Amino acid sequence: MAVYVSVIGAGDADADAVAAAEAVGRELAVAGAILVCGGRGGVMEAAARGAAEAGGVAVGLLPDADRSQANRYLSVSVPTGMGELRNGLVARAGDAVIAIGGEFGTLSEIGFALKLGRPVVGLGTWELARGGQGVDAIEVADGPRDAVARALTLARR
Amino acid sequence: MAVYVSVIGAGDADADAVAAAEAVGRELAVAGAILVCGGRGGVMEAAARGAAEAGGVAVGLLPDADRSQANRYLSVSVPTGMGELRNGLVARAGDAVIAIGGEFGTLSEIGFALKLGRPVVGLGTWELARGGQGVDAIEVADGPRDAVARALTLARR
Amino acid sequence: MAVYVSVIGAGDADADAVAAAEAVGRELAVAGAILVCGGRGGVMEAAARGAAEAGGVAVGLLPDADRSQANRYLSVSVPTGMGELRNGLVARAGDAVIAIGGEFGTLSEIGFALKLGRPVVGLGTWELARGGQGVDAIEVADGPRDAVARALTLARR
Amino acid sequence: MAVYVSVIGAGDADADAVAAAEAVGRELAVAGAILVCGGRGGVMEAAARGAAEAGGVAVGLLPDADRSQANRYLSVSVPTGMGELRNGLVARAGDAVIAIGGEFGTLSEIGFALKLGRPVVGLGTWELARGGQGVDAIEVADGPRDAVARALTLARR
Repeated sequence: MAVYVSVIGAGDADADAVAAAEAVGRELAVAGAILVCGGRGGVMEAAARGAAEAGGVAVGLLPDADRSQANRYLSVSVPTGMGELRNGLVARAGDAVIAIGGEFGTLSEIGFALKLGRPVVGLGTWELARGGQGVDAIEVADGPRDAVARALTLARR
Repeated sequence: MAVYVSVIGAGDADADAVAAAEAVGRELAVAGAILVCGGRGGVMEAAARGAAEAGGVAVGLLPDADRSQANRYLSVSVPTGMGELRNGLVARAGDAVIAIGGEFGTLSEIGFALKLGRPVVGLGTWELARGGQGVDAIEVADGPRDAVARALTLARR
Repeated sequence: MAVYVSVIGAGDADADAVAAAEAVGRELAVAGAILVCGGRGGVMEAAARGAAEAGGVAVGLLPDADRSQANRYLSVSVPTGMGELRNGLVARAGDAVIAIGGEFGTLSEIGFALKLGRPVVGLGTWELARGGQGVDAIEVADGPRDAVARALTLARR
Repeated sequence: MAVYVSVIGAGDADADAVAAAEAVGRELAVAGAILVCGGRGGVMEAAARGAAEAGGVAVGLLPDADRSQANRYLSVSVPTGMGELRNGLVARAGDAVIAIGGEFGTLSEIGFALKLGRPVVGLGTWELARGGQGVDAIEVADGPRDAVARALTLARR
């Protein structure tokens, strides 16, 4: 059965995050994994573009009630009409999750993924602590290739 | 952009419904449409099998929290963890909907599709009336090939 | 534990449906049941008004992302941000469901309720058939008082 | 219109978190606010108990398909059948959110709330950083009374 990896990150992302997302999408496609994302712009579009250009499959779970805001690199899009609640669907759909940069929406997806027991690999994303002590719940990668390698290893466990 | 057609029907379906669903899935694949279904057995599995055998794409939106109950003909599966509420997602994901036979879950998807303005084509499915007067909200097809032709015409309007 | 009864019907309802909904809301409040509805206008508002005026509790599960469209008779409102998908939540929240008049959204709620095994009592609502044979899945009431009596009996089973 | 405050925290909570949640629930009730929570044990139950004992209203949005796991202090319970996705509903339902202690589910709710622009007040909860720099998105309270005062002020803005 195919491995699914969700790539999460902001719709309004800086150039570094976009470049990382595109590389992550490409590496996932080369590895034969199915990429899942939120289906819109920024990190979501860059990851889908990377996957599409390498001949892979990119699935977009949209917050919208229709497909008008979908990016054009998706193999399959699903308009959920659930708004930001679809973040939970994105987190659930991955056997592992790669978080790139990220704003508050990404934080919700990280929380959701960790709650569901999905392994989370991070590239320049949130750092968590409680009571002044760091919580090592997110595996920190040192680049897109490393992030994909870690995610695939964790997804197959 | 690809046309999406949702095929809805019971997980516990009789032989006629299964044969119709498989033919519908095959015809949709031949026409290049993406098939969306609920991802499990019965009509859902038969439609996905028909699509897969003709080289098409079948998307399954599962009620379950994981992929263990997914049928094996899906190109892409999404475990929603939303139970029967995912019926609304299936109805929304299609530019048109084909209802085959069907029990109460199918009725919920028909209602949802009609509410969202998605055209619904029926094969041996529910008949609706109010105040003793039939309501012609479902376009009745006389076979799988006719159902697909009607759904594609309606989806492209 | 309190009994919950969901009252479903169109947001754009005629005077008969509005009068019936208000009477249903009032009778439910008098019986001590908690009324659940979709939180907006028409049948939803009339039912909530009836409950409020009789000192009862009315819960509204809104399709919207905030409370700006909630009617003013709700004791508790929940903005789901899920659009029409919230119909499934309304159907699930009732130990029994009363359908009044109704358009396609009401049909989706009837389907969800029946799929989930919730008893459905109807007042001038959809009539269902398959293969030309009526399907007696909805218990037909002959007025608001009868509808509430039947719903409470079925809810307590 | 009533003010709604969501109280989030783990179902399996330590004695400090439980005591804080009960005090928060009580203060919210005294202030006339409606408390929203996830409807189950731990922090959710303690907050609802505090509210109920002070004569307030406690609403529980349950992950479950029925009410069997609801705590007994809820004025109103809604079985969503959406599993952990209901965390997003809890976050959305509050005009402000108070996070107490908390595990990964709480993190998902904090992320959802911040994404949706809901103010979040924390009592011994997650601390956030990016790139080694703390992100002050959560207003830190020094006790239950302070948390409620801050939440009500923020909710009314």
